[in-house]
Amino acid sequence: MQILTEPRAMQQLCQSLRCQGADLGFVPTMGALHAGHLALCHRAREENPQFVASIFVNPTQFGASEDLSRYPRSLETDLELLREAGCDAVFTPDARAMYGDTDLLHGTWVDVAPFNEMWEGVTRPGHLRGVATVVAKLFNLISPSRAYFGEKDFQQLHVVQALTRDLNFPIEIVGVETVREPDGLALSSRNAYLNEQQRRAASAIYRAMRAGVEAARGGETDVAALGRTMNAVLEAEPLIQPQYVAVVDAENLTALQQLDGRAARILISAHLGKTRLIDNMAL
Amino acid sequence: MQILTEPRAMQQLCQSLRCQGADLGFVPTMGALHAGHLALCHRAREENPQFVASIFVNPTQFGASEDLSRYPRSLETDLELLREAGCDAVFTPDARAMYGDTDLLHGTWVDVAPFNEMWEGVTRPGHLRGVATVVAKLFNLISPSRAYFGEKDFQQLHVVQALTRDLNFPIEIVGVETVREPDGLALSSRNAYLNEQQRRAASAIYRAMRAGVEAARGGETDVAALGRTMNAVLEAEPLIQPQYVAVVDAENLTALQQLDGRAARILISAHLGKTRLIDNMAL
Repeated sequence: MQILTEPRAMQQLCQSLRCQGADLGFVPTMGALHAGHLALCHRAREENPQFVASIFVNPTQFGASEDLSRYPRSLETDLELLREAGCDAVFTPDARAMYGDTDLLHGTWVDVAPFNEMWEGVTRPGHLRGVATVVAKLFNLISPSRAYFGEKDFQQLHVVQALTRDLNFPIEIVGVETVREPDGLALSSRNAYLNEQQRRAASAIYRAMRAGVEAARGGETDVAALGRTMNAVLEAEPLIQPQYVAVVDAENLTALQQLDGRAARILISAHLGKTRLIDNMAL
Repeated sequence: MQILTEPRAMQQLCQSLRCQGADLGFVPTMGALHAGHLALCHRAREENPQFVASIFVNPTQFGASEDLSRYPRSLETDLELLREAGCDAVFTPDARAMYGDTDLLHGTWVDVAPFNEMWEGVTRPGHLRGVATVVAKLFNLISPSRAYFGEKDFQQLHVVQALTRDLNFPIEIVGVETVREPDGLALSSRNAYLNEQQRRAASAIYRAMRAGVEAARGGETDVAALGRTMNAVLEAEPLIQPQYVAVVDAENLTALQQLDGRAARILISAHLGKTRLIDNMAL
């Protein structure tokens, strides 16, 4: 497995891989790899003769008051996991290699405007723009045939799909199902921030979504009623502070008032102490 | 010369050209070709074994009150000129092929933020964002080795250089010197809007810039004084209404107060009746 830190070197390697005519899979990560990332890798491995990954904690997608400095980093373990997953090359640039001397005085942004006005766009101003920009940069450096993103970050997956289509990147975006702990908690690098009590409480997010799904299966179509059902589960857990509990159109993420046969998705964001978790589930 | 209207077909053609290992030149245009465009084509022809052009009057770079509907269109003549210039393939999509059914309700923008606050960014809100977005799309569709832009649109050239660098497009941006009429007027498709009197008056833009250059050569370093010199030439021509007459740092386009040895550039925008012209010159 090759390990590259220089954008130009990665670009040249990937161009030569692509021009051999074979498909190239790509798994972008911020490191701190868990079984969710490995599911992306296994899928990339299955579907492409070559696959590469990136490990880059992208500063432009963190707000000033967010957890950039304490975001978990475990490069050696990550590399070992990627090697075991059959990864052909890993791109591990530093912020300067990606953004130049100007660091965050970065001039060019990719902005998927409609998503800024909803959910993570409102809760984390600038976050989605940072994601979209770094994804466009990585796409240009790696030129994959297919890129793999977890459904756990559902709005991010939509942002990536939109920018890929709108900017004509010749890349297939593959969404991969969320991997969960036995009690239903979605795997996330940020779960490492939780103490033991918070970790136990966190499964209420999953239980709330399951309660919403069950209520809908039982015939409830009123979204306000579904919201009350889910909030009741969360409120039973005093360590959780819900931020949004939404039922949205799974295509464009706009809030629904009523289930009407369109594909719908539950989106939840909640704090446990200082840790913010998000999750989602098909309804 | 191949003529393609479908983005996917153009993308596949260009991918196969690139993967043959040969460089690919690209000349993006909005049609209404003149000798300025042909200078780009000749340069592309000299420097690349293959070169392609696009003709697309990009709606997202026109403001609501601007000249999208009356922008000059001359497809048959343009194709003939490109054929004579040795162009290998021309991409002539319609707006729907480029932006989908949603037309201008386009979700993703490429925005080179610092340039929005100056000159064309202020005068034509949204214009540079429309340019940056369509250029990113065309770059992804065509994947050229080199792309050719006229210096006549000096700020546009800077926007394209910035987005190419910032988004890691593996493309060399080549700026090509402005082609001028015998009286100095820069060639522009919009010159076709001028009536005979306006056409004669328009050369004052060139004469004003030359007066600025001469004053600087004579030792004048105070930008306010240079501005007065240039404005005096423009004011002698009653058909011209200057919009901005600026002396800027040629690297970042910020206004200078004093010439201090840094590369400087004169930027002028002016109206002749309803027609708006821009021009620039090294100082």
